[in-house]
Amino acid sequence: MFVGPNASFTNDKFPRSKQYPAAYLQTLVEDDASIGANATVLPGVKIGIGAMIGAGAVVTKDVPARAIVAGNPGRVVGYAGAAEIDDRDRSLPADFGAGVIRLAGTDERRGRLFVADDGTVPFVPKRFFLVDKVPVGEARGNHAHHVSQQFLVAAAGQITVAVDDGRRAFAVKLSRPDLGIYLPPRTWSMQYGHSPDAVLLVLTSDAYNRAGYISDYREFCKITLAASGE
Amino acid sequence: MFVGPNASFTNDKFPRSKQYPAAYLQTLVEDDASIGANATVLPGVKIGIGAMIGAGAVVTKDVPARAIVAGNPGRVVGYAGAAEIDDRDRSLPADFGAGVIRLAGTDERRGRLFVADDGTVPFVPKRFFLVDKVPVGEARGNHAHHVSQQFLVAAAGQITVAVDDGRRAFAVKLSRPDLGIYLPPRTWSMQYGHSPDAVLLVLTSDAYNRAGYISDYREFCKITLAASGE
Amino acid sequence: MFVGPNASFTNDKFPRSKQYPAAYLQTLVEDDASIGANATVLPGVKIGIGAMIGAGAVVTKDVPARAIVAGNPGRVVGYAGAAEIDDRDRSLPADFGAGVIRLAGTDERRGRLFVADDGTVPFVPKRFFLVDKVPVGEARGNHAHHVSQQFLVAAAGQITVAVDDGRRAFAVKLSRPDLGIYLPPRTWSMQYGHSPDAVLLVLTSDAYNRAGYISDYREFCKITLAASGE
Amino acid sequence: MFVGPNASFTNDKFPRSKQYPAAYLQTLVEDDASIGANATVLPGVKIGIGAMIGAGAVVTKDVPARAIVAGNPGRVVGYAGAAEIDDRDRSLPADFGAGVIRLAGTDERRGRLFVADDGTVPFVPKRFFLVDKVPVGEARGNHAHHVSQQFLVAAAGQITVAVDDGRRAFAVKLSRPDLGIYLPPRTWSMQYGHSPDAVLLVLTSDAYNRAGYISDYREFCKITLAASGE
Amino acid sequence: MFVGPNASFTNDKFPRSKQYPAAYLQTLVEDDASIGANATVLPGVKIGIGAMIGAGAVVTKDVPARAIVAGNPGRVVGYAGAAEIDDRDRSLPADFGAGVIRLAGTDERRGRLFVADDGTVPFVPKRFFLVDKVPVGEARGNHAHHVSQQFLVAAAGQITVAVDDGRRAFAVKLSRPDLGIYLPPRTWSMQYGHSPDAVLLVLTSDAYNRAGYISDYREFCKITLAASGE
Amino acid sequence: MFVGPNASFTNDKFPRSKQYPAAYLQTLVEDDASIGANATVLPGVKIGIGAMIGAGAVVTKDVPARAIVAGNPGRVVGYAGAAEIDDRDRSLPADFGAGVIRLAGTDERRGRLFVADDGTVPFVPKRFFLVDKVPVGEARGNHAHHVSQQFLVAAAGQITVAVDDGRRAFAVKLSRPDLGIYLPPRTWSMQYGHSPDAVLLVLTSDAYNRAGYISDYREFCKITLAASGE
Repeated sequence: MFVGPNASFTNDKFPRSKQYPAAYLQTLVEDDASIGANATVLPGVKIGIGAMIGAGAVVTKDVPARAIVAGNPGRVVGYAGAAEIDDRDRSLPADFGAGVIRLAGTDERRGRLFVADDGTVPFVPKRFFLVDKVPVGEARGNHAHHVSQQFLVAAAGQITVAVDDGRRAFAVKLSRPDLGIYLPPRTWSMQYGHSPDAVLLVLTSDAYNRAGYISDYREFCKITLAASGE
Repeated sequence: MFVGPNASFTNDKFPRSKQYPAAYLQTLVEDDASIGANATVLPGVKIGIGAMIGAGAVVTKDVPARAIVAGNPGRVVGYAGAAEIDDRDRSLPADFGAGVIRLAGTDERRGRLFVADDGTVPFVPKRFFLVDKVPVGEARGNHAHHVSQQFLVAAAGQITVAVDDGRRAFAVKLSRPDLGIYLPPRTWSMQYGHSPDAVLLVLTSDAYNRAGYISDYREFCKITLAASGE
Repeated sequence: MFVGPNASFTNDKFPRSKQYPAAYLQTLVEDDASIGANATVLPGVKIGIGAMIGAGAVVTKDVPARAIVAGNPGRVVGYAGAAEIDDRDRSLPADFGAGVIRLAGTDERRGRLFVADDGTVPFVPKRFFLVDKVPVGEARGNHAHHVSQQFLVAAAGQITVAVDDGRRAFAVKLSRPDLGIYLPPRTWSMQYGHSPDAVLLVLTSDAYNRAGYISDYREFCKITLAASGE
Repeated sequence: MFVGPNASFTNDKFPRSKQYPAAYLQTLVEDDASIGANATVLPGVKIGIGAMIGAGAVVTKDVPARAIVAGNPGRVVGYAGAAEIDDRDRSLPADFGAGVIRLAGTDERRGRLFVADDGTVPFVPKRFFLVDKVPVGEARGNHAHHVSQQFLVAAAGQITVAVDDGRRAFAVKLSRPDLGIYLPPRTWSMQYGHSPDAVLLVLTSDAYNRAGYISDYREFCKITLAASGE
Repeated sequence: MFVGPNASFTNDKFPRSKQYPAAYLQTLVEDDASIGANATVLPGVKIGIGAMIGAGAVVTKDVPARAIVAGNPGRVVGYAGAAEIDDRDRSLPADFGAGVIRLAGTDERRGRLFVADDGTVPFVPKRFFLVDKVPVGEARGNHAHHVSQQFLVAAAGQITVAVDDGRRAFAVKLSRPDLGIYLPPRTWSMQYGHSPDAVLLVLTSDAYNRAGYISDYREFCKITLAASGE
Repeated sequence: MFVGPNASFTNDKFPRSKQYPAAYLQTLVEDDASIGANATVLPGVKIGIGAMIGAGAVVTKDVPARAIVAGNPGRVVGYAGAAEIDDRDRSLPADFGAGVIRLAGTDERRGRLFVADDGTVPFVPKRFFLVDKVPVGEARGNHAHHVSQQFLVAAAGQITVAVDDGRRAFAVKLSRPDLGIYLPPRTWSMQYGHSPDAVLLVLTSDAYNRAGYISDYREFCKITLAASGE
């Protein structure tokens, strides 16, 4: 943990007073996190591995692993160490597991239609979900799957999807419904930068299985390290 | 065909002139269509079976079967003979093939998530597509499938989905991502009433098969009549 | 009643057809109403005294007395014979019963406050109501009161208030919360031209009394004629 | 007064410089106020009794009694010690003087109308005012009345009304014109959380009387303590 | 003049009535204009040379030469005989006098800047003007200049500029501030299709000179015919 | 340089960590700049002459001369020492070189037109440019010209233009296309406070000449001092 000058770790959101006592909450800063100068961390907040708190930021809630937080109140604005990729301009490296898939489509006077035919996405979706109304600055996801594959599309609005295979990370900005991102198993992902009208569609290759989630970034790193060693 | 007083069938969008001649186009009005008083039908337009053109409407493009058209320019505002159903209030009759399916969901500070787990929708989706940017007053769909099943969700905005099994028809207004409509095979559907921000997600049980479409309403009626006679 | 060329009175919104029969509905056009060329009047609609239907308009619902209707579908766009008055520019004649009253106010960095103190409005309000979400083109009001006085303010948005003492009429556009219009007894009023965000605040001098309403314009004219003869 | 680590009280908004000298202004922090870690308080600002300045907040103007301030620039986001009540879900305790009153109403195609008839509100309004264009994060009110009663309605938009009888406090979120809040005499109130389109309608039981205001929270507490002891 | 079936020429906006008499106004339809079926033309309106009134349109005000009008109320939607050109896709023919000129520009994080240096536009501007708040469906311009040259840029929003050299006509949709259209002398131009936020910047090669305008399309045709014969 | 209590100068945006090292960047604070209490200045940032960093501000990029910066992230909110002038209310002093010029105009139903005829602006424009999409809080300009004159108009939206002749400075808020500001040679200008829809039109008296720019505020002061001594 690296902490800049004048950063404050408070043990109460508001200092103790007769009238409005608050419970004592432990703040936890994990390995490799860094905290900028003059940043303020509220009590009870957990700052994940490799997270970066910008100078002057006020951290009011948990920070996911490798999330970059800035502003007052603090908002997730990036994924540490990830190159930013705009879906319109560039694609992910060929040897990286995750990749952008383009849906065939038509754009005509009567509206637009973008289709994933049998074979477009490399799995048959057993499950899908929609995510919307995510507040500005919020981050979601922050887990990987042991075996499940996923396909993410910004059905409306814009969303940035950070993808991380344990060695490299990219932040892919999705902003149109004909471009989705495929996530193979053992890919850590965080979604952030939602526009107010963003709707994320996620299709998954497997039914829900609690045991299939990797929710701890440290464990994720061990698993991917082991897998790459095979 | 029933035509009200003063309705005009023009054989040219603009009357013939030396400077801007236009090709002669045949207007086709199919069985059971009705055309209101003072309505204007532009040349070359096809008005489908059972369509209803409101009084004073100006029809500038093809009208699907059973579509109700009003205004200048004419816009699709209903499906003739269909009871309107709001997704929040009522459900379709139990003995009707199509039905509204609720997705499980969470609505919390970090955003909303609505999920279709294995079994929520009665088929495994082989194909999906997204439809957006549909102009106000446009109608899409206007076909049934011989064997394919579909599941339609308004991922964003509002859309009205008319469903018709050849005997009864309902117009279901979708306005939230946790309520979708399931369409069994041999269900005719028209989508209309899109809000400007509407995004329709459609999942289908089968890969694309041109031969599986029933695009003629008359043929659809024969097929459903034959099927119900079994 | 004066009717222009090619105007249609339909006896069915959609012409009679085997499949979708409709009840026979009587259309009623009252004295002094005028109907423009090529206008279309739907069945069952009542067109009030002195109303004016613009050329080409399609009238789909009842038209209040003296309302001016234009467009397809027809929307109320004016009050026949009324001079238009913008609240910012001019005031009503001194010898006209109704009048614009300015509320004292402050406009500062912390917001604006407009106040009606004791005496600002010439009655103590026994009752008040708020009207909002009025669709574009709709008209409300269309009655007078035998003894009750009213004060109308556009708390938000814009609203045009037609006021008519039986001899003269004015259409006052309210567009700011510091200007309201006072209506003495026996003043006919119609509100129209609501902006989508319009909220009308009405304060009345008397409790609700069904018998106090004058809802028929012909009766209103007789009453004001009698009153002025005194 | 409780002050967290690294909080700064500056005696000049910008530090003294040859070119732009600024007057010396005294900062005043009243009893029971608390100031979070790393918070910055600008010179000349008065922080009211029981106010809470969040960690990292930058206080640029006076803070009312019991206001909770957060962000840079600091904005009022709550009322210290008040339970939040959504007007749609729950009501205030029966033994609490202030209460939510529902206006009778109709919601139809032609618009909505919500009415307070004689008796709906427990006083005849002598005075009313409208408040709009309140900037995001601003707080208004911050006083009680010795004898005057009030009724507050969000005629448009959303507003949170904190009500405090000296012993208990609640923050009631008003978001629809058919629900208003009644304030008996000796009820301290602060309004905050205005949406950009918010319009507050206030009706009062008495004409304006400068002497009827209780503008000092300490005095308010003494008065309510004395009143409850009777 | 060619007139379709059921078209109405009214001699009064509202038919004559005792209460609201209207002056008799002459309607004028110029050469080569065409009027669609069921169209309605209000009294006193002038329909310019070569204008085309769509089927069912209600014409409430003067129609410029070659303007295409549709809807109720009628709005200018095109320029008769003009090929539509999107500024992003194609350019005007090389042998056509008017042409699209691209401004050099930069698009960076700090904003965009588009510049016309000395020489970008083939004249030194003596005069410039800005046009904004043009209502939807309105048309402006409708004249040529004997000697003055012009350069038009959509500084904000979208505008369609019809340009006509007397032999050929094009409708160029301007939608970005780095693309303007240059008009040589003796180029007739009509601007229409303004988006609500449109701002048109016009620079002219000459000071204002009333005698330099060609405001009659018939005269314009004669002048260009004579000029081309030289 | 004057620095308030608890202000931090960080030598890394995020403190040094094994995983994400950052280059060492020198922070430069020029003469007469002042930095408020608890402000945070990121590494590598240059703070210009006379700039004022507000208490608690987080400075993430270069600050122009005399710019006032506030908030997190820091945004330009003013020009130090400049009196604010609203274009609608007041004009600049007669003996100040820069001045507001009103364009003649018409505001009618068909739209508004504002024109600068030959002579309205005291030079013939050799060059013009448009600036749009400037992010909220950004500042542009920050230079003067040795001989070139300029005329600035807010073609759309609002923009504040700070003008400084080396002795006095004013901040003129432009918010309508009929009011522009003329800048004689040797006038330093900074534009800030752009609304999201702002479009700035600038006309200049001379062709582009890199040598004609005065981009250093210190040099500008010397030049104006020398010029006034003549």
